[in-house]
Amino acid sequence: MVAVHLINGPNLNLLGRREPATYGATTLAQLEERMVGLAHDKGVQLTCHQSNIEGELVTLVQQAGLAGEGVIINAGAYTHTSIALRDAIKGADTLAIEVHISNVHAREEFRHHSFMAPVCAGVIAGFGTRSYELALDAIIPLLQARASRAG
Amino acid sequence: MVAVHLINGPNLNLLGRREPATYGATTLAQLEERMVGLAHDKGVQLTCHQSNIEGELVTLVQQAGLAGEGVIINAGAYTHTSIALRDAIKGADTLAIEVHISNVHAREEFRHHSFMAPVCAGVIAGFGTRSYELALDAIIPLLQARASRAG
Amino acid sequence: MVAVHLINGPNLNLLGRREPATYGATTLAQLEERMVGLAHDKGVQLTCHQSNIEGELVTLVQQAGLAGEGVIINAGAYTHTSIALRDAIKGADTLAIEVHISNVHAREEFRHHSFMAPVCAGVIAGFGTRSYELALDAIIPLLQARASRAG
Amino acid sequence: MVAVHLINGPNLNLLGRREPATYGATTLAQLEERMVGLAHDKGVQLTCHQSNIEGELVTLVQQAGLAGEGVIINAGAYTHTSIALRDAIKGADTLAIEVHISNVHAREEFRHHSFMAPVCAGVIAGFGTRSYELALDAIIPLLQARASRAG
Amino acid sequence: MVAVHLINGPNLNLLGRREPATYGATTLAQLEERMVGLAHDKGVQLTCHQSNIEGELVTLVQQAGLAGEGVIINAGAYTHTSIALRDAIKGADTLAIEVHISNVHAREEFRHHSFMAPVCAGVIAGFGTRSYELALDAIIPLLQARASRAG
Amino acid sequence: MVAVHLINGPNLNLLGRREPATYGATTLAQLEERMVGLAHDKGVQLTCHQSNIEGELVTLVQQAGLAGEGVIINAGAYTHTSIALRDAIKGADTLAIEVHISNVHAREEFRHHSFMAPVCAGVIAGFGTRSYELALDAIIPLLQARASRAG
Amino acid sequence: MVAVHLINGPNLNLLGRREPATYGATTLAQLEERMVGLAHDKGVQLTCHQSNIEGELVTLVQQAGLAGEGVIINAGAYTHTSIALRDAIKGADTLAIEVHISNVHAREEFRHHSFMAPVCAGVIAGFGTRSYELALDAIIPLLQARASRAG
Amino acid sequence: MVAVHLINGPNLNLLGRREPATYGATTLAQLEERMVGLAHDKGVQLTCHQSNIEGELVTLVQQAGLAGEGVIINAGAYTHTSIALRDAIKGADTLAIEVHISNVHAREEFRHHSFMAPVCAGVIAGFGTRSYELALDAIIPLLQARASRAG
Amino acid sequence: MVAVHLINGPNLNLLGRREPATYGATTLAQLEERMVGLAHDKGVQLTCHQSNIEGELVTLVQQAGLAGEGVIINAGAYTHTSIALRDAIKGADTLAIEVHISNVHAREEFRHHSFMAPVCAGVIAGFGTRSYELALDAIIPLLQARASRAG
Amino acid sequence: MVAVHLINGPNLNLLGRREPATYGATTLAQLEERMVGLAHDKGVQLTCHQSNIEGELVTLVQQAGLAGEGVIINAGAYTHTSIALRDAIKGADTLAIEVHISNVHAREEFRHHSFMAPVCAGVIAGFGTRSYELALDAIIPLLQARASRAG
Amino acid sequence: MVAVHLINGPNLNLLGRREPATYGATTLAQLEERMVGLAHDKGVQLTCHQSNIEGELVTLVQQAGLAGEGVIINAGAYTHTSIALRDAIKGADTLAIEVHISNVHAREEFRHHSFMAPVCAGVIAGFGTRSYELALDAIIPLLQARASRAG
Amino acid sequence: MVAVHLINGPNLNLLGRREPATYGATTLAQLEERMVGLAHDKGVQLTCHQSNIEGELVTLVQQAGLAGEGVIINAGAYTHTSIALRDAIKGADTLAIEVHISNVHAREEFRHHSFMAPVCAGVIAGFGTRSYELALDAIIPLLQARASRAG
Repeated sequence: MVAVHLINGPNLNLLGRREPATYGATTLAQLEERMVGLAHDKGVQLTCHQSNIEGELVTLVQQAGLAGEGVIINAGAYTHTSIALRDAIKGADTLAIEVHISNVHAREEFRHHSFMAPVCAGVIAGFGTRSYELALDAIIPLLQARASRAG
Repeated sequence: MVAVHLINGPNLNLLGRREPATYGATTLAQLEERMVGLAHDKGVQLTCHQSNIEGELVTLVQQAGLAGEGVIINAGAYTHTSIALRDAIKGADTLAIEVHISNVHAREEFRHHSFMAPVCAGVIAGFGTRSYELALDAIIPLLQARASRAG
Repeated sequence: MVAVHLINGPNLNLLGRREPATYGATTLAQLEERMVGLAHDKGVQLTCHQSNIEGELVTLVQQAGLAGEGVIINAGAYTHTSIALRDAIKGADTLAIEVHISNVHAREEFRHHSFMAPVCAGVIAGFGTRSYELALDAIIPLLQARASRAG
Repeated sequence: MVAVHLINGPNLNLLGRREPATYGATTLAQLEERMVGLAHDKGVQLTCHQSNIEGELVTLVQQAGLAGEGVIINAGAYTHTSIALRDAIKGADTLAIEVHISNVHAREEFRHHSFMAPVCAGVIAGFGTRSYELALDAIIPLLQARASRAG
Repeated sequence: MVAVHLINGPNLNLLGRREPATYGATTLAQLEERMVGLAHDKGVQLTCHQSNIEGELVTLVQQAGLAGEGVIINAGAYTHTSIALRDAIKGADTLAIEVHISNVHAREEFRHHSFMAPVCAGVIAGFGTRSYELALDAIIPLLQARASRAG
Repeated sequence: MVAVHLINGPNLNLLGRREPATYGATTLAQLEERMVGLAHDKGVQLTCHQSNIEGELVTLVQQAGLAGEGVIINAGAYTHTSIALRDAIKGADTLAIEVHISNVHAREEFRHHSFMAPVCAGVIAGFGTRSYELALDAIIPLLQARASRAG
Repeated sequence: MVAVHLINGPNLNLLGRREPATYGATTLAQLEERMVGLAHDKGVQLTCHQSNIEGELVTLVQQAGLAGEGVIINAGAYTHTSIALRDAIKGADTLAIEVHISNVHAREEFRHHSFMAPVCAGVIAGFGTRSYELALDAIIPLLQARASRAG
Repeated sequence: MVAVHLINGPNLNLLGRREPATYGATTLAQLEERMVGLAHDKGVQLTCHQSNIEGELVTLVQQAGLAGEGVIINAGAYTHTSIALRDAIKGADTLAIEVHISNVHAREEFRHHSFMAPVCAGVIAGFGTRSYELALDAIIPLLQARASRAG
Repeated sequence: MVAVHLINGPNLNLLGRREPATYGATTLAQLEERMVGLAHDKGVQLTCHQSNIEGELVTLVQQAGLAGEGVIINAGAYTHTSIALRDAIKGADTLAIEVHISNVHAREEFRHHSFMAPVCAGVIAGFGTRSYELALDAIIPLLQARASRAG
Repeated sequence: MVAVHLINGPNLNLLGRREPATYGATTLAQLEERMVGLAHDKGVQLTCHQSNIEGELVTLVQQAGLAGEGVIINAGAYTHTSIALRDAIKGADTLAIEVHISNVHAREEFRHHSFMAPVCAGVIAGFGTRSYELALDAIIPLLQARASRAG
Repeated sequence: MVAVHLINGPNLNLLGRREPATYGATTLAQLEERMVGLAHDKGVQLTCHQSNIEGELVTLVQQAGLAGEGVIINAGAYTHTSIALRDAIKGADTLAIEVHISNVHAREEFRHHSFMAPVCAGVIAGFGTRSYELALDAIIPLLQARASRAG
Repeated sequence: MVAVHLINGPNLNLLGRREPATYGATTLAQLEERMVGLAHDKGVQLTCHQSNIEGELVTLVQQAGLAGEGVIINAGAYTHTSIALRDAIKGADTLAIEVHISNVHAREEFRHHSFMAPVCAGVIAGFGTRSYELALDAIIPLLQARASRAG
């Protein structure tokens, strides 16, 4: 059975509690619950994590990679500053998809560059919390293809 | 009925004819055919276009926007150099999604910046020709929401 | 009789159809009609062109220059990216005035630089569609002076 | 009655005394006299000022703005270095037009950027002393529109 | 009763133990004790925190903001590298004042830029440990004004 | 008795007359009056100056420094362009505090850099006209310490 | 028999009609005629094209590459701005030589960078219309070597 | 007896488990065991630490410095982004040597700059896990010299 | 008789009153007196000026140039920021020599660039107040050569 | 009789001894021998030089220029760093062609800029050792034209 | 028997004769003598060279590489400017270690970049003349490994 | 007796043989002869050197410094690229004056920066060969002051 980790980074625990006009009224707990349900319907085991600490995200990404499991990651602000997350994805050969709720390219200049993107399989940004759902659809065949290559 | 335009830019007519290891063996004609079928199943009318000429892409984007129809656009190299395409999307208030077959962030530095992205609804990159399918899933609710707001 | 070409570039065909608060309610057809009338009153033969295609603008600029006729050009987004238009003005020794409806200096950073401006006679920006009228006033004595030098 | 201030900055007092091939043989006094006459014919009260001192230009711009009067300003070299002039125009809500005798875009790189332009109504550059006349034509309807809005 | 959090970031636990010529002989404990006393005298409840971990600072800033309480923060080196702290202040709508003991503008180039400053109410830098006292004076009326608006 | 100069630079004479939503309704005269009163209560002799001319500010800063008196300076736009003010503070060994009404770090990029800050004792920015009051509190012990060292 | 395409880009249709002191008196037609003759003598079939439109040049480069034929290309101003031409050469695996009449390195800074050069076999610049003849000599053995490898 | 801390940063816990062709087959545990043995032979007490969390590394570096003990640190990705680690070394006056397994100068551009290097005693990079052994040899006389100066 | 103006800019009135270790104990008055004497011995009429105001320096430079007289100028901080001074020298065709007491190249980065230097005859920097004497020796033959050309 | 110098710079003495896959198996001696033969057939006297020392290349270029003889120069790494070679070509008015074996534009960023190219007649790069032969063809008519002008 | 070349670049002949506080009192001759002794004890034949001339260093590096011998190189200032040395190491496949006496990262900005480092096996910097001894320890197993692979 | 070395760098051996309009008709030999005569009259022993090789200039500068003798150096193109010359001046504590015949600030951008200037006593540029004479006047008192300090 395919296993995927949904990893949310700094400040995403605020989801739904502030600026609902921008980020929607869905809380992180609701988002995670819906994603687990969707995953279950597609035969995927989804585990959810959130941390504000860069190094804990590094550890989560490593563990997923070493276990051969996929990662859907919204690294928040660390997307733009963390070489350590990039090294974790590359070093543990983690199959990861970078996700953003908002269209980061339409925001401040310093949010246009991602250290992680070059080592991710792909990037999905700008579709609100639907970005996570699209990422789930996107990662399943990639994990299956990897499994069949490994198998 | 929701209408969407699939617009491919310069050199995407080469799809499937060169570098199959990188871009897959699917030709543009096959991709377009599959996308039309998928769209039909979802109740979407999909029209396909390809041009190597920047100004023709500008015109296509304008026409879609003026008609209130959506756009899934892979502008190829013009993504990184065309302010005119950005102006077309913004000027005609076109609902557009930027799509890339490859992970542009893992390629040359000059492919990391997109003039169009800030005025698109979102960006999907790196999933091969599956990027188009994910974009189709992503654009439908956005067009429906816009229609209901306008209605 | 003095001859002038009014050349509008990409997305200016949208004039009056979108964002009237910013660009006014005048359509391109109405603008061209008014300009032809004004020119006629001043004894100038004005011909109007619009294209979204950079290369077609290059050809228009060349033809005017080779015929010894003047150009009032709003190159839209190509103002900021087209070295080819610059070369056309310089190569055909075209007497050209760069015109903008909006104050480009008050917009995004990438609209502050013009490749064409250094080879134009002058620049007029920010006066709405009145920029075109001021350009017409400006170009007439320049064409007459050139004609008398050539004559 | 509409009132406009013609403000010339550093080194424009040299007009007509040096480099006549470039700047023409008209002195600043002659230019001011002609402009006052032209303004009178159009029913505009034009007052002329010149100073080499940045802070004096700041004060002039403030006073015009606070009195609801327009400004045609050639700030010379301060165009490119003075944030204070920009703040004066913005802070006193002065309706101003930036004017240049020469085509600044065809000169040194450091003359391509203007701190004032983003807060001016528009820019006219490159038409010799005719740039001032075009600016006079341009500013009248803008002042009238503002007056009617305020009225 | 007004509540404020004094949050000190990386390496500020070293205060008073090293380089007394530069940073003074006051330890962090002594500074915190004095600040609590000063706050008490002004009718403010002050809570003190210190962490070397960026993510823990993010969490502290969020909690204060969500509780409607103020923050005086010396983020040390994270001032210059942390977009996550900026997002925490903005995302939780935290009323925060950025404080520095030394004059960061007189130090290395990379200490001149602050990611947090644009989303803080203000910045106080260079007055030794007195910077904290000035910040306390500064934040009280701001919190009261906010409370009265909310009330 | 401690003596301090309150020096306001370009456009601060507009205070209270424009954009009250941003800058408050207090005029410069009212601000100066209140500051003189506050200073008097703390046993400080405060003298107020305003000029739009960079060189006059240079002279004021020099005179204060040569007399061993303190300076609270809001140099407005010259903060970002004037090396001469920096040299005046350093050359006359003036004890100066840089003050800003608004949070300059939250405004345009070119307002983020200060030539004066590295030679000032400290910086206070963003607290409206309260920034001046905090600066007064900050400068008194610094002047006293200097006096006792000199004494 | 070896087949080569001589592709001239924007403004090269002006050759010989303007600035003969710089570009010589040879027209494009004369140049093409001479090149066809030279090619014929060397047993090469040379076809000539000119277009001011970037996208048409893209198509020409693709067609030559797909047919296994060589390209001598003077892309004029598009040399410095077109990523699409680069992608066309790379995507269709076209054997191409970049040619310039003038020494582009002795001209404006923005003409020093070529997007195409890294994917061309080589570059020849600065020898007037003789650059084309040298390119013809250069491309023949390269096409023969490729043919023998493919054969 | 001389005491040294071997501190490994983010992703170095992956050592030996991935990419053995690049990083060798030695695990972190094996490396630490060998280093402890070598240190013992040289009369050095070596303690080993690893953390993915920047702030924990800051604390470790501080503690070593305050205790007058040396540090051999491979900060991984934090080498290039952490000003906090730099401040910890400088603030606690820690005698530290920066170590890298690979030759960071032969990798991506963003790995060429180190925030820590200017405050370290020296740098050793590129010799695989032997870099650590060389660092041990390098640090012993430096610690002895410091001890004799302090003693 | 040859006439030369010695023009000192901002903060040079502080000469000899502060930092004698760096700038020497000579006051500006003493320097000017010595220079006038030296000039007299060489048959040169030397007039001395000092101003902290950029625009006054512009006027002084203009007047000298229009009178065909030479200028030895130490523009202090305005050297690095004033395009207006550059324009004054060029516009009035003033024969000027740029002088600095200290070696500006050994100071802050922003003192390495001079806007005036390209339009001066030459530059002399770093020899203390002797720089002025060397400049006097340098300017005499240049003024004589110009006079004989004009004569 | 036309005389040409073939000047090879640093590391070109390694030709044919290392990396034959990239640079071919031809040694420098063999290349020089073939070039002398080809030159002889075309009635050109070719002299060959190689040096790893920048200053010796400067001297060789000067001597050729002073003697009115041509230069084909592959300056290797000095192409990108030597202003002295540029000055030698310009100062001695040497007719020179810059040659490269590999396509330098497809290599590292720092090899894209040439200090010499702007003062050379032209540039030929990327054709292996055939670049030298093409340069020989290119230089002959240029030297003959210069001789006839001088004659 | 393993052979290594100790190559010192520009100004290292001054060692021990100037600035002993910084560089120690050891002269280059003493350093070389000690290194030869150490090498002898480890069964390595060490040859010492010093030159101020970049091209001579290039030749030395080539010769070592072609002979399959190792290089310990302190290229001094050429480290930061010489692409030729980089090409020599790469072109002759020389096994080289870059060494610095001082910690170059703690010095001027222009000493932070090394052109050679990416093609060296490793870098050792900051340990005084002990850097050379560590490099000797580092290079021996690398040369042995290479020999056994070649053998 | 005071001893000074006149050191001319690359291409200055061409003096008087090329471009006399720019550089004058004086040859290097004539310049050196005149300088030796002038020096003799002032009681200075002047020795002249010229080399095109950077490393030889380094050696000359070192020898002068070690002997306690002064240097007047025109390093030509190496001024802008040579860190080695800077290190030689600093390392041997050489009292040096940087001299240029032309006004380097009025030439190409890359000639505006000097690596040597920060470690020279001063800079004299733009006075033709008189720059050397002014430098001789400048260096004498500096050498005497140094001698008296050392004495």
